Amino acid sequence: MLSIEKYQEEFITYLQAYSTVKEPVSLYEPVAYILGLGGKRLRPVLTLMSADVFNGNFKEALNAALSIEVFHNFSLVHDDIMDDAPLRRGQKTVHEKWDVNTGILSGDAMLIMAYQLFENYEANTFQALSKLFSKTALEVCEGQQYDVDFETRNNVTIPEYLKMIEYKTAVLVGAAMKMGAIVAGASVADQDSIYEFGKNLGIAFQLQDDYLDAFGDPKTFGKQVGGDIIENKKTYLYLKALEFSNETDKSQLLELFSNTNTSSNKVNLVKHIFTTSGSAEATKTAIADYTNKAFLVLESLNISDTKKMLLKNFGIGLMNRTV
Amino acid sequence: MLSIEKYQEEFITYLQAYSTVKEPVSLYEPVAYILGLGGKRLRPVLTLMSADVFNGNFKEALNAALSIEVFHNFSLVHDDIMDDAPLRRGQKTVHEKWDVNTGILSGDAMLIMAYQLFENYEANTFQALSKLFSKTALEVCEGQQYDVDFETRNNVTIPEYLKMIEYKTAVLVGAAMKMGAIVAGASVADQDSIYEFGKNLGIAFQLQDDYLDAFGDPKTFGKQVGGDIIENKKTYLYLKALEFSNETDKSQLLELFSNTNTSSNKVNLVKHIFTTSGSAEATKTAIADYTNKAFLVLESLNISDTKKMLLKNFGIGLMNRTV
Repeated sequence: MLSIEKYQEEFITYLQAYSTVKEPVSLYEPVAYILGLGGKRLRPVLTLMSADVFNGNFKEALNAALSIEVFHNFSLVHDDIMDDAPLRRGQKTVHEKWDVNTGILSGDAMLIMAYQLFENYEANTFQALSKLFSKTALEVCEGQQYDVDFETRNNVTIPEYLKMIEYKTAVLVGAAMKMGAIVAGASVADQDSIYEFGKNLGIAFQLQDDYLDAFGDPKTFGKQVGGDIIENKKTYLYLKALEFSNETDKSQLLELFSNTNTSSNKVNLVKHIFTTSGSAEATKTAIADYTNKAFLVLESLNISDTKKMLLKNFGIGLMNRTV
Repeated sequence: MLSIEKYQEEFITYLQAYSTVKEPVSLYEPVAYILGLGGKRLRPVLTLMSADVFNGNFKEALNAALSIEVFHNFSLVHDDIMDDAPLRRGQKTVHEKWDVNTGILSGDAMLIMAYQLFENYEANTFQALSKLFSKTALEVCEGQQYDVDFETRNNVTIPEYLKMIEYKTAVLVGAAMKMGAIVAGASVADQDSIYEFGKNLGIAFQLQDDYLDAFGDPKTFGKQVGGDIIENKKTYLYLKALEFSNETDKSQLLELFSNTNTSSNKVNLVKHIFTTSGSAEATKTAIADYTNKAFLVLESLNISDTKKMLLKNFGIGLMNRTV
């Protein structure tokens, strides 16, 4: 097993060799651009780590890891068009730097390229990876669609919200780890367990994202604190606050989240309700619950205690983040 | 072997059973809508026919045929967004009926669904079909990108144009037929030959499209005759006319194809140059050349003469169309 930093390094070297621009340049330049923007490379690192955890060789999992990263970036390119987002990782989004049509078509190419990265695996591994990939990719699309649908719905329930973040974010984390297990030839039971570990960690990660967006330290949090509140995003914090609030606070929250509200003090008012209603605390509990659910799955894995501890520490690190 | 109409019928029955709308409805309703708009179903019929030609069972090729049709419709949905097209087969395009974001996301889902349709084939067939699919799908994206690039280029050559239509249109026809051969367990040599047959027929088909757009009979041609001319499309007819014309005609043609030209007589003036320059005749010759190239490939196939004649007649029927 290597350190996280070492896996990142190995992955980035592999990614750079892959990111050459071929003809037509106007199609492949945006692909190299978005892949080169950086990020934590969390998902591909998990694939490599998972391959080593199951006594495989992380080098054999590099193509699967790259596929996960290419797919993730495909989804960012198309989501950024849909969200009309100008910036991604502090740089121009693809549709801003080029145009919407380029974003659509280069994104399509990336989705296909992600599948091609499985082609060097032998037929049975290829089929297992491709099937998992298709199932996951379609769930990511469904998650994105639910997210879009929720924007115009006023009756989103907590289970619906949890399903949305599971599909939009968490299943890809689970799939990333399961791919490492598949390449390493782990048992189906172990493949399924590591998927559950990743998925639950992914849900905890996304809830943590919701929490930090409101309660992160402006000094260490990379983005604008309160961004979700400004955009009226129906996060776990918001839905729980509606559930827990008395009628007065509930009315105020609904009014603050209406499109006509332009109160300069909105972020502070909303955060106050998130805290007093008990929603902030409930969100922290939910994060802990999903993290523990992930750790519980670890116990059933057919691997050494040292490796279990390693995966657990990785999860703890993720949950203690401030960024 | 069945008749074309019977293959169409079998395919449409299969397609209808597939086109059920599941959750989230907002993602899958547009998929069912575009798949239900009709069309000749040319590509999937070729897959089924090809399976029977190589002594397979067309029923086993239904999923591969459906994959080709789902992919083709994915490309229509995304192309229609890029071209800002309001209508498709006389009905509203997906992004017109819903919105651009729906078109992007439902299109993405269709691309993934096309891959999933290979999942019931055993591992080696699955891998062969998926690889061919990815290669072809990426070429279709590249062809679309070349088409976009050509809009703003004034130095497009005939070989470049031919490569563009090969990628954008013809390779999918070749792949449709090769998939039938793969499912039927044909030899690699036969797989490659039927691909070449389909590809060359596809190029002839697209050149025929260019020709009919200008010289089709308004009574039988479904679309507005001269549409390409009105849109200043650099078709084979246009590029050949530029190549063959004297300086005076060349200047006139360039002027007629400049964006500032709004001559009401434009279509007739351009068609006159297409004819007098010899471009119309050269296009007919190119159509015949690619058709014959396709027929020549047939001879090498390891199938009965009756089946060769059947494929040839299909090609002749395609080339004698007026629609």
